[in-house]
Amino acid sequence: MENFEYCRPTRYVFGKGTEEQTGKLLKEYGYKKALIVYGGGSAVRTGLLGRVQDSLEHAGIEHIALGGVRPNPRADLVYAGIKMGRDEKVDVILPVGGGSVIDTAKAIGIGIPYSGDFFDFYTEKAVPQAGVPICTVLTIPAAGSEGSDRSVVEKEIDGVVCKNGTASPFIVPVFSILNPELTYTLPNYQTACGVVDMMAHIMERYFTNTQGVAVTDRMCEGILAAIVENALAVFADGKNYDARANLMWAGTLAHNNICGVGRVQDWASHHIEHTLSALYDVAHGAGLAVIFPAWMEYTLKHDVMRFAQFASRVFNCDMDFSDPERTAREGIQALRHFYKQLGMPLNFSDIGAREQDIPLLLNMLCGSDPEHLEGNFMKLRREDCEQILRLAAHYQS
Amino acid sequence: MENFEYCRPTRYVFGKGTEEQTGKLLKEYGYKKALIVYGGGSAVRTGLLGRVQDSLEHAGIEHIALGGVRPNPRADLVYAGIKMGRDEKVDVILPVGGGSVIDTAKAIGIGIPYSGDFFDFYTEKAVPQAGVPICTVLTIPAAGSEGSDRSVVEKEIDGVVCKNGTASPFIVPVFSILNPELTYTLPNYQTACGVVDMMAHIMERYFTNTQGVAVTDRMCEGILAAIVENALAVFADGKNYDARANLMWAGTLAHNNICGVGRVQDWASHHIEHTLSALYDVAHGAGLAVIFPAWMEYTLKHDVMRFAQFASRVFNCDMDFSDPERTAREGIQALRHFYKQLGMPLNFSDIGAREQDIPLLLNMLCGSDPEHLEGNFMKLRREDCEQILRLAAHYQS
Repeated sequence: MENFEYCRPTRYVFGKGTEEQTGKLLKEYGYKKALIVYGGGSAVRTGLLGRVQDSLEHAGIEHIALGGVRPNPRADLVYAGIKMGRDEKVDVILPVGGGSVIDTAKAIGIGIPYSGDFFDFYTEKAVPQAGVPICTVLTIPAAGSEGSDRSVVEKEIDGVVCKNGTASPFIVPVFSILNPELTYTLPNYQTACGVVDMMAHIMERYFTNTQGVAVTDRMCEGILAAIVENALAVFADGKNYDARANLMWAGTLAHNNICGVGRVQDWASHHIEHTLSALYDVAHGAGLAVIFPAWMEYTLKHDVMRFAQFASRVFNCDMDFSDPERTAREGIQALRHFYKQLGMPLNFSDIGAREQDIPLLLNMLCGSDPEHLEGNFMKLRREDCEQILRLAAHYQS
Repeated sequence: MENFEYCRPTRYVFGKGTEEQTGKLLKEYGYKKALIVYGGGSAVRTGLLGRVQDSLEHAGIEHIALGGVRPNPRADLVYAGIKMGRDEKVDVILPVGGGSVIDTAKAIGIGIPYSGDFFDFYTEKAVPQAGVPICTVLTIPAAGSEGSDRSVVEKEIDGVVCKNGTASPFIVPVFSILNPELTYTLPNYQTACGVVDMMAHIMERYFTNTQGVAVTDRMCEGILAAIVENALAVFADGKNYDARANLMWAGTLAHNNICGVGRVQDWASHHIEHTLSALYDVAHGAGLAVIFPAWMEYTLKHDVMRFAQFASRVFNCDMDFSDPERTAREGIQALRHFYKQLGMPLNFSDIGAREQDIPLLLNMLCGSDPEHLEGNFMKLRREDCEQILRLAAHYQS
């Protein structure tokens, strides 16, 4: 096990009706004026935004609102939010939505006190030194941003869309409100994208060369197994409260790093996928459903027994002691089969990606550096990433 | 799943040599004068106390020290610590030790600003409104106090030793330093008591009537399985760093409630055991090794399938689909067998307890209230607790 530090002070307020507490909670922390950030129409249509605003009114919290965040969130809206936040002197940012909304709010939060371009934080040109605090009301279990110190935003630079991330203690939410009932109305496709994303967050941590990490191994495996069984329950009945609740809490645990401490993590699949969602504007989860199994197939021989362990403990595959690789491959097939059950895409054509774009995707991933490496489980060179993309392109649905 | 709130802001600093950072960390938080609390000779003998003091000197943190905390910690030393802390105007308490040392430090921390008797917090006569902050250096993975909001202390009242607990956000440690190397020198008996205690913390949460809690179920099962395999590895080689590290982190996760959110918890076994450790001054873990299996045997029929799930997922027992109760009982036997491998006591005589004391133990547990109930999985009346104690008394080693 590696040395580590872990501190995740977010207060999770979880359960039925908890969004009604938003105003009361903001008041408890002494906040006076909130910038509410939200996405498309669903927060308005379902009445959630109105209920949250009522709760703020009731608690005497002033508020302004910025809507229109879209999936794969763009820098434009962040600049608008920074200006609004400064002009109106807000002292808290309140995203009401999923990962894109929360990530936008986080960018606004660290952008407000910074004199330069907020995107400097996403290109490692600068490190946040302060931030307006973030409190979230989550509506989509997926990105785990409600409990993470991370944010991902897209910006077009010189005609190329860059999808970059940043990490900072200043964007860890002060509190996050999680009401599983708010996810009853999610279309199956969005639920499925969320499931793929949270599983990927765990698997990026799970596939490691670090030895002697049984506790986090077992947590990863257990939460993955729970996600699989509860996702199928949600697909059978979208208003199964307990199944929705388990998915929602799993999404938070998948990315607040409680499953990742003390181990070197991978993250190659995420980086490869970011080029797909940037180029084709495909949902991150959908892109991961295409990339992650291809990454697994490509790296399988690096540690067959770890993949066999994954197959056995997550998908209950029978261990073939005479041929562990068969078990290992069965685990990847089981994962793909599960994605298929969820209606997820399985190859390039399912997401409108084209094999002839692979050189472009590789340029987006590796830039002009011939020594560029991705991942840690296996250090992947440009030609390795190319092989993974080709596997993803050719896989038969 | 039940609604819940979860907030555990403790910063965990985990790994080799981390105790060297104590002074630097205290300085980072702006503390100026620490009351170091420690136990018997081992912190002195191993040089740990000296290293921690050097680290404080180096960072310019003033310090005074209070030693002599013993297992099943007593109120006397808490009063002494409160007086020292007030006289010397310390602004942080720094326990260097295991659960008894940390629990004593926590009692001192909330006792200092309180005008009444600190034990009021442990008899529910008062609720802490403030506390001197606690930062810990852990030496025994067991009680989980380094990440919990709880403290247990003994006080003799009218000739009877009361072992009571309290909970408060003011006693959640600000940071906890966890170096697994510090546990290399623990005698097997103490390691084993710690293992039993941390497993009990998980099982008190695991055995619940709350439905639809797959994520926390799987986390409980996974961490229990990891504890079993790593405890046996530590018994084979006390200097197996990874095994020690997994046990240490498991002890924290077992009781910082990440495994217990959204579910009604039991805690009858802990309360029953507290009477044993109070009356016979036996180690808490040793008492739990005697009581918990007896509690399981007594409550098994309340939910046979939950015990079968425990047996199958934690101890890999084959599920007997025609007779799940057989599997359920096999799980309890597997737990007892594991305790035996660790050299733990299995019945009353192994811990010097006497069957004729059962009425006294029941008085300590239930007081004079004929309606007194213990636990939640099954609500236990006095006569139920008596049956559990008799099972524990008679079990054959």
